[in-house]
Amino acid sequence: MSSDGYLDPESDSYDSRPQFYIGQHDTARSETLTDAQYTHVLNSGFDFVTTPITNHHFRQRVVELYKSHLQDREQWGLSDVAKTNLSLPGPVVPTLTDEDTSYGPSSYVGSLIAYSSPWIDLCSPDPIISSISRQVLNMELVYASFCGARSVIIPGPREDESSSAVMQYSRCIQEALQAANRINIIVHMPMYREPGLEEKAATLSSLLGKANGAGSSAEKEIDIFTTWDSWHTVRSVCNYSARLFVALRIPKRIPEKNLQERWFAEPLHYLTLGDHIFQQNAAGRPSLSRHHQDLIARYMRLKHYPWLILSDVGPGIEALDNLPDPMAIEFPSLAEASKALKESRKPMPTRNNYVAYMKHVERQQPPYSAMETPPLRSFQDWLQSPLQPLADNLESATYEVFEGDPVKYNQYEHAIANAMIEWKGLNKPTAQSPENSDLVVAVAGAGRGPLVTRVIRAAESTGTSIQLWAVEKNQNAYVYLLRQNNLIWNNRVTIVKTDMRGWAGPTSPSGQPYKVDILVTELLGSFGDNELSPECLDGIQRHISRPHGISIPHSYTAHLTPIATPRLFADIASRVVADPNAFETPWVTRLFALDFAAQKAPGHPRFQQAWEFAHPVEISRADQFAERHGNAVKFHTVGGGSISGSSGVNDHNARHCHLTFVCPTRGVIHGLAGYFESVLYASQVQGGTEKVEISILPDQIDRKSKDMISWFPIFFPLKQPLLFPPDSEIEVSMWRQTDDTKVWYEWIVEAYAWVGPKTRVKVGQSEMHSSRKVACLM
Amino acid sequence: MSSDGYLDPESDSYDSRPQFYIGQHDTARSETLTDAQYTHVLNSGFDFVTTPITNHHFRQRVVELYKSHLQDREQWGLSDVAKTNLSLPGPVVPTLTDEDTSYGPSSYVGSLIAYSSPWIDLCSPDPIISSISRQVLNMELVYASFCGARSVIIPGPREDESSSAVMQYSRCIQEALQAANRINIIVHMPMYREPGLEEKAATLSSLLGKANGAGSSAEKEIDIFTTWDSWHTVRSVCNYSARLFVALRIPKRIPEKNLQERWFAEPLHYLTLGDHIFQQNAAGRPSLSRHHQDLIARYMRLKHYPWLILSDVGPGIEALDNLPDPMAIEFPSLAEASKALKESRKPMPTRNNYVAYMKHVERQQPPYSAMETPPLRSFQDWLQSPLQPLADNLESATYEVFEGDPVKYNQYEHAIANAMIEWKGLNKPTAQSPENSDLVVAVAGAGRGPLVTRVIRAAESTGTSIQLWAVEKNQNAYVYLLRQNNLIWNNRVTIVKTDMRGWAGPTSPSGQPYKVDILVTELLGSFGDNELSPECLDGIQRHISRPHGISIPHSYTAHLTPIATPRLFADIASRVVADPNAFETPWVTRLFALDFAAQKAPGHPRFQQAWEFAHPVEISRADQFAERHGNAVKFHTVGGGSISGSSGVNDHNARHCHLTFVCPTRGVIHGLAGYFESVLYASQVQGGTEKVEISILPDQIDRKSKDMISWFPIFFPLKQPLLFPPDSEIEVSMWRQTDDTKVWYEWIVEAYAWVGPKTRVKVGQSEMHSSRKVACLM
Repeated sequence: MSSDGYLDPESDSYDSRPQFYIGQHDTARSETLTDAQYTHVLNSGFDFVTTPITNHHFRQRVVELYKSHLQDREQWGLSDVAKTNLSLPGPVVPTLTDEDTSYGPSSYVGSLIAYSSPWIDLCSPDPIISSISRQVLNMELVYASFCGARSVIIPGPREDESSSAVMQYSRCIQEALQAANRINIIVHMPMYREPGLEEKAATLSSLLGKANGAGSSAEKEIDIFTTWDSWHTVRSVCNYSARLFVALRIPKRIPEKNLQERWFAEPLHYLTLGDHIFQQNAAGRPSLSRHHQDLIARYMRLKHYPWLILSDVGPGIEALDNLPDPMAIEFPSLAEASKALKESRKPMPTRNNYVAYMKHVERQQPPYSAMETPPLRSFQDWLQSPLQPLADNLESATYEVFEGDPVKYNQYEHAIANAMIEWKGLNKPTAQSPENSDLVVAVAGAGRGPLVTRVIRAAESTGTSIQLWAVEKNQNAYVYLLRQNNLIWNNRVTIVKTDMRGWAGPTSPSGQPYKVDILVTELLGSFGDNELSPECLDGIQRHISRPHGISIPHSYTAHLTPIATPRLFADIASRVVADPNAFETPWVTRLFALDFAAQKAPGHPRFQQAWEFAHPVEISRADQFAERHGNAVKFHTVGGGSISGSSGVNDHNARHCHLTFVCPTRGVIHGLAGYFESVLYASQVQGGTEKVEISILPDQIDRKSKDMISWFPIFFPLKQPLLFPPDSEIEVSMWRQTDDTKVWYEWIVEAYAWVGPKTRVKVGQSEMHSSRKVACLM
Repeated sequence: MSSDGYLDPESDSYDSRPQFYIGQHDTARSETLTDAQYTHVLNSGFDFVTTPITNHHFRQRVVELYKSHLQDREQWGLSDVAKTNLSLPGPVVPTLTDEDTSYGPSSYVGSLIAYSSPWIDLCSPDPIISSISRQVLNMELVYASFCGARSVIIPGPREDESSSAVMQYSRCIQEALQAANRINIIVHMPMYREPGLEEKAATLSSLLGKANGAGSSAEKEIDIFTTWDSWHTVRSVCNYSARLFVALRIPKRIPEKNLQERWFAEPLHYLTLGDHIFQQNAAGRPSLSRHHQDLIARYMRLKHYPWLILSDVGPGIEALDNLPDPMAIEFPSLAEASKALKESRKPMPTRNNYVAYMKHVERQQPPYSAMETPPLRSFQDWLQSPLQPLADNLESATYEVFEGDPVKYNQYEHAIANAMIEWKGLNKPTAQSPENSDLVVAVAGAGRGPLVTRVIRAAESTGTSIQLWAVEKNQNAYVYLLRQNNLIWNNRVTIVKTDMRGWAGPTSPSGQPYKVDILVTELLGSFGDNELSPECLDGIQRHISRPHGISIPHSYTAHLTPIATPRLFADIASRVVADPNAFETPWVTRLFALDFAAQKAPGHPRFQQAWEFAHPVEISRADQFAERHGNAVKFHTVGGGSISGSSGVNDHNARHCHLTFVCPTRGVIHGLAGYFESVLYASQVQGGTEKVEISILPDQIDRKSKDMISWFPIFFPLKQPLLFPPDSEIEVSMWRQTDDTKVWYEWIVEAYAWVGPKTRVKVGQSEMHSSRKVACLM
């Protein structure tokens, strides 16, 4: 987002709830504001104001140009414009003069939001009108850029949303982004085409006395997604330019949720609110419906939340025209302007009623939650490369962040306590028995020891006598653990510095090896297995006593859903030059500005399980595994049929899934959101099991581990956005692949549409994606 | 294509018609042929033979492996395979031993076509079967590669063509291409699934006594495109690998033309013909239906035409088993093998009946036409960068090629003669009159003078008295023209060395300038205007006399159609590293292995006109143009609204089109084929006009300029293949853009599907493509 720093919502001065930036737009305005007028508008409570770039004089010149060109054609005997496009030069719009614009460089031009001429018609079927319109647009943009504008709002495509018209429009915007290569272009789009409430600006056609192209929309059934379709085409043609945004016109009737969410994911720069969407309250003051307030409040939760533009809510042109102009100087110096501003401040105008009301709405917003405090909010849609958990040693501060999530550790403690209670309740023998009835507990990958503390607490709360081991490979964290053991844990813990996969297991003081009753680990990533929990546990689980030994977590599952994330797509696309694997990297990111493609349908939930891992695995298999690991000679009998370069040792941790998602509403997807759930421990209770779980699934987290913040989701991008029509099914194929030395994912997505009750046809397919080049090393 | 050089259809030894290479395949064969058997098969008339890679012993071992794994699972209490996939290692297929295969390195292994085990099932819903199958495939491939195989045929996906199954299959092939990274993989696909005639090889499932997955196909309506769908998915997942081909199984009932053409465009390596597709002729000998013969003849016209494999047509295993084996040595030396071969040649076996018949079919093919002689055939689908006609000077040999097309110059002569006749018939004043009644004719861009010769001939044949000027910018061609004038043209021609745009026009001996009556040029490219004919003629047309002056050509039109060209797509994709603009270059190419996406529909022909240029343009405009060119001062009044960096001087030569193509059958497109037509001259005759035309449109060339070979089509590629479902419409937006210094094209394609009688939805869209970076310089 841009515009002047002092208005920037991204600056440090944040409030306890989103702060509104409110601008003023007047559709009848044709000249830029004088300094006095500008000051007056600001003093009415607005934060900024729009300005036209050119004036009526220019518009009239363009109209005359068209007319004189037609006369020329008639002279040549060529009156039918459409038929005589051949080899005929259209008119070239003359360059701007001082008479054509009152807009110009000034000290506050960066705070004026330039609005390009609404009367142009870029997709007119009349090739001369579309040519003139394109020229006017480019001239206005480069002039605004020259004057210092950072952003220009451009009216979106008109009601004719044919492929031909929208393509013409899109091509013009693409060219405009090149012509004015430093400014942001903000396309003004209605949220949907509200019958009878479309803004009817004068067009070049109407100025020339011609009928506008599009027919009456009243005849057609309302399709609320057509303006989003057009926007999607525009930005696709413009390759998701980072300089292209939306100014979204809020309708009188708020549409259904899925359209609101569709726009939520788009790069919203402004929300524009016309006079007509306000109601009058009992006191005759403007107010908004609850639906409007909710919509605004929702959009305001975005990290880059939109600014508001109130349209035609005063002070209007007439009021402003009657202001005494304190300055006759056209381009005042900063000192002069400042002096003039001060003078014009008295008398202070009364605050605009609409602004006053919007300030009220601002205060009604719920305050920021813990997850929305600035440091956490800044993680919204911020791409992090996944950890290399086995290769990297973490810093203390990183551990501290992880330890700061009480929800997660409470669930662990609860699970450990349940396991201890059940162990005793069922009178299971311990790993050391009959020599010693202490339960043997090991925390593998102990880090700075938060789980060690929780094991001790669980033992105390359940009155369980335990022997406790902590295994950690990070030599620096090891020092910290030793210190904790001295200071906090009364040296009750045996601390071993080793990679858990190489640990020899617990031994008695006499050197007798024995097994572990409860193995506690926290190796899970955003997608469950993506930080190699299965491989790490394979390496240590031979120490778990059988048949009663327990792994906490007991199991975990990976889950997927296809999503639209235009901003993330643009972000990843911008990285490809520096990072050729950007589109084949599973990114850990706090997905926020997203739109779910899949609806909850019977048998096809929005979030679907990809696969599961459970621990410990069957004993025979674990032995087999240990044999293989321990005895390379065994390999002479196994084949080379696995993934190239592999001998199949880790093949049992490969996975594959094929999922079908149901999408009644058309849209686009940019990738797959990944989540996990884990059953830490499941106790047998009367009539079933009682599970202690953690989950980051949006529809489960509140039920299973509310307010847990340790994990953000994972995002598997697609190189090309995949369009899908209404009544589609999206089929996702995903693999967890391994070659004995590393683990990676592969994913491909197909779109199918139902074109009859029994006929489903493929309409699109992504490339096969693979994170092999950025794989997790074992 | 590959395999041994001496069998290579690309070698120099070509015949006057395509030569068949005929191989033998025996589905019951499980051991590779002995030398004697191999010799015997070759002596039966075959050119090559297939071989299995592994034998029944290996298959039995794999079956046992699966069974013992199931027993293990039962021991662990895990009998339901599907449910207990979790964390269970599947069996690892042991490495091959000498007992598992009789295939091995030999002097002729390159001539044996390896055929992988047909009993594997890569997309089995049983994860253990699919895992074993994948391992077997990879082991066979790397072993075949070790032995020296160049290509391996792999059975295609089975009847279960669900998205899940085909994706699994595709992923396996992708992996196989990596595992065996030097050999070609040839997927054996039926042309379509012929009910009741599918090959039913034993599968791992059936060997294990399980039902095969797919249901009976008799219940379903036949959809003849499903196998192509599967192939398209496979090769898409494999990124159009240059090592991936099709072996196409020819069906008993030849399907409709559009399916034949679909496969025609694919990389066909083999056609396989089973015993059952042959009929018995009156003499009890095998023969093929006319439809089969036509299909084969059609495919044989490809530059890389497929080889034929006759399946189960003898000599069969039993016959071969009874041969005396002259060798007991397993890997004979070359000398030993050669001796053995010689011995085994006696007695000479009789020629196989089927081979004899196929040799007959070979002779029935039409001989190569002029366009199919080896030099011209080699241009099939060969990508040429377009000329820079204004920047480059051509070599004499290039002119000679162009001059070698009598059809084109005959049409020009005819047009010039018609123009002269009409001029006289209408008693039009000449440019010089009343001083001189000679018709003034100028050939601009005369090259080595072929059009000069034709103008002279036309004048002689019509008894027209002319004054002839020839303008040429190429200083080397100028020398040639001067010599021609001396030797051939009796110095009747005034030759001027200049860029035509800078020519001062004809002058009388006294220095009086005058105009040209007939201007003749040959500046057209494959897409009409793509070699800047409009811009060149703009620069010279001020010398054409008004109102009667004539340009030959009078007008030209550009035409488009969307096409599938998988081979060209793969070719362009392979160039992208070296040439980042490869997908945004309009390639001149003799499009051959293509499939037209659009059907001829009422109002929506397969080939549609993009735009037209006509010459000379209106006089006022031409004056305006000259003024602009001549007087830079004029520019101070024109705006900067044109394409960035341009002042709009050439804007009248910009064009835009939006075309809709109707596609009833589903498919994929890889780009747009471009063509042109030109009206050289249109005479007014009773009741209308008589046009002399040239055309390279496939459906017009025979009518308008049969056998004209001067132009190949142009190809506008798409970066991503665009899939479209049945009952689609493909919308093409194309622009001819200019910035006063160069000309380029932009194109974007959208796919829409009808999902109800009134509802059309967008299902896909290409990127916007632009050739600006490889633009034609003015």
